[in-house]
Amino acid sequence: MNSVGGYDIEDIKPGLSVSAGRTISEADIVMFAGVSGDVNAVHLNEEYAKTTAFGGRIAHGMLTAGHISAVIANKLPGPGTIYLGQTLRFKAPVRAGDTVVTTITVRETVPEKRRAILDTVCTVAGKVVIEGEATVMTTSSKA
Amino acid sequence: MNSVGGYDIEDIKPGLSVSAGRTISEADIVMFAGVSGDVNAVHLNEEYAKTTAFGGRIAHGMLTAGHISAVIANKLPGPGTIYLGQTLRFKAPVRAGDTVVTTITVRETVPEKRRAILDTVCTVAGKVVIEGEATVMTTSSKA
Repeated sequence: MNSVGGYDIEDIKPGLSVSAGRTISEADIVMFAGVSGDVNAVHLNEEYAKTTAFGGRIAHGMLTAGHISAVIANKLPGPGTIYLGQTLRFKAPVRAGDTVVTTITVRETVPEKRRAILDTVCTVAGKVVIEGEATVMTTSSKA
Repeated sequence: MNSVGGYDIEDIKPGLSVSAGRTISEADIVMFAGVSGDVNAVHLNEEYAKTTAFGGRIAHGMLTAGHISAVIANKLPGPGTIYLGQTLRFKAPVRAGDTVVTTITVRETVPEKRRAILDTVCTVAGKVVIEGEATVMTTSSKA
């Protein structure tokens, strides 16, 4: 552990995994529209959204992706992590009321660069809604 | 244009580009911490953040990335777009008060699949803070 409660690069090994769940609320969608500026009607207008292939309002993909950022920053590697990159494949819609479970799994580490590649998956009721990978830099116990 | 004001796939060609600017506020950072759950001290605790390599609080990378979602959803291809994927490389920090300019440029289109690949770049004062690419599906004038 580093001084702020996160993992040093020497602490994490491929296969180490953490999950956290969070229910997406209508308030989250409204606030994300505000902070992002993404006011697409499919997120905010139920009557329009009903006419689309989604059949109703959906959450912003980047809002659900924010949960990945959270689990990385809060848990694995946790405080002290610097986020270098993320890939996201949006596989299925998320709606208000859905509980998103985000799982971060260490795929590989490059200790000499203090870097790790993490598999990042979000599911709703067991179905993948986002998959991708994160690249992070963390602290070293040798620094 | 489609019926909701976005571009059909037949309307967009490689090189077509739009930009939009937005100033990141302290309120955006606080609200993004709430909706994402990413409460990393580097975003919320100025005294701690001053001790890090960043020298002060920074915005969440995924908050700035939300601007990419917004310009795609609002402008290019605009309403009617389905977001399929995004890659993000976080190149430099963004702070409250910074004005982020997000530029979306069509790299290629696959009309028969109604898909487009977009280059997505966010800059602050001309310096790249996020770069990556988006994959989207949009409407067709032939549908």
